[in-house]
Amino acid sequence: MIELDFNITIVGLGLIGGSFAMALKELNPKNLWGVDIDEDIIKTAEETGIIDKGYLKPQAPLENSDIVIICIYPNMTIKFIRDNMNCFKTGAIITDTAGIKDKLVREINSFLREDLDFIAGHPMAGREYKGLEFASKDMFADASYIITPTYRNNKENIDIVEDIVKKIGFRDVVKISPEEHDKIMALTSQLPHIIATALINGSNEYDINRFIAGSFKDATRVARINSQLWTELLIDNRKNILAQIENFEYSLREIKRAIISNERETLKSIFDKGSLRREGML
Amino acid sequence: MIELDFNITIVGLGLIGGSFAMALKELNPKNLWGVDIDEDIIKTAEETGIIDKGYLKPQAPLENSDIVIICIYPNMTIKFIRDNMNCFKTGAIITDTAGIKDKLVREINSFLREDLDFIAGHPMAGREYKGLEFASKDMFADASYIITPTYRNNKENIDIVEDIVKKIGFRDVVKISPEEHDKIMALTSQLPHIIATALINGSNEYDINRFIAGSFKDATRVARINSQLWTELLIDNRKNILAQIENFEYSLREIKRAIISNERETLKSIFDKGSLRREGML
Repeated sequence: MIELDFNITIVGLGLIGGSFAMALKELNPKNLWGVDIDEDIIKTAEETGIIDKGYLKPQAPLENSDIVIICIYPNMTIKFIRDNMNCFKTGAIITDTAGIKDKLVREINSFLREDLDFIAGHPMAGREYKGLEFASKDMFADASYIITPTYRNNKENIDIVEDIVKKIGFRDVVKISPEEHDKIMALTSQLPHIIATALINGSNEYDINRFIAGSFKDATRVARINSQLWTELLIDNRKNILAQIENFEYSLREIKRAIISNERETLKSIFDKGSLRREGML
Repeated sequence: MIELDFNITIVGLGLIGGSFAMALKELNPKNLWGVDIDEDIIKTAEETGIIDKGYLKPQAPLENSDIVIICIYPNMTIKFIRDNMNCFKTGAIITDTAGIKDKLVREINSFLREDLDFIAGHPMAGREYKGLEFASKDMFADASYIITPTYRNNKENIDIVEDIVKKIGFRDVVKISPEEHDKIMALTSQLPHIIATALINGSNEYDINRFIAGSFKDATRVARINSQLWTELLIDNRKNILAQIENFEYSLREIKRAIISNERETLKSIFDKGSLRREGML
């Protein structure tokens, strides 16, 4: 039974694209095609049945796809849409999964054909490993999906994207502007990765394995990072990230000052405030 | 069958003391007594059978205990031993569980009776909740136990402590000096708690619950903190902690500088270094 009456193409069969394919396959779309630059990945994806057919060249699947889900790096996403502008089917929904949105949406909208609808998306899910081998149809369970609509988007198409991401497991869909998205991600996603990296890189004095408790492990988990992708995200969102780093540095200096000047009450109230905020978090 | 041929007293039946009691009970010591300032806690501990008998006044159990395990805040630990100096049984082993060691060991050794052996210990385990209700006999499974011996300690007594903590579930026992302990804890335990607090306290701009992914959750988990205990730990270990905060600030500024000056290669190599170090962690 076809639950999704669309031809869908996924571009990039990595961790995110692969997980999308696995989750979408369960919904029985009319056709589920994959595009990748790696022939071995296409072969694996076909053999394991997570796509109906894979392609190195995107033209054929794009010409017949109602929905195109692009799961590659931000700047590659822009380039892919630009390079294949003439291949997309009239009326197609194009969506992406990149971790930055403002620059990407503006650039794509500057050259997008009038008859296409680019609805930018960002699955708030991931892992510290990359590649199809770590993909899973359950990766999106209980995560948030962010959509950053603009005036150009067709309301019905937004509903279609929202419906699909809910069907593949996302807990809820949040709609905000691309600018807001980038500001918030600088805090909730990029800053924690930067802090984890700074913490572990500053720790080379000791054989820490013998002395780590849960706090250090958790604080550095995401230091295991896809360095190429994150370099791109950070450079592209630099204004917001620098503001968040400075905000964090200020917050850290408050604690430092209280320690230096032996202000027990200040320190206790800083910890109480943090505890309370953390308790309020889901 | 008595596996531990000792009378043991646990001072402070909170998260750590309660967990010690539960785990020790399984080893059938000759007698397992508890001391606490809270009558209700003593009653609960007696009723649930995690101790044989509880006391508000420590004199009676101390006079008959071969081993005394003190599970209260660092400065209370010092005060408890000082105040009850004349109660301890000749030849008794006294150990503690405080998260700082240098100042504590020096102070206690300055007034300790010659016939007593204070062997300082630190279980590298804990939870973000406090109190007996969160104690568990399995809390120490797979954690490290640090012992910080000094020239005063009797080798056989160190072996006894080591044997007991292994029997109650600790994966391994690490022996280092009190000074080293405090330096390392500033990095592997106290700094992550400070960072988590600074991160969450700096984040009050948004309703972050709608936007948090795993990275922010993990990075702030230990912001849920026992503020009184941690204020004490930080003030008492301030020299080492300030050095570690400054080291971390330096490491963070490296990333910031690379972002400001658009140095993609520098940024990528910083992330690669962090990834590699994190992969090497247990």
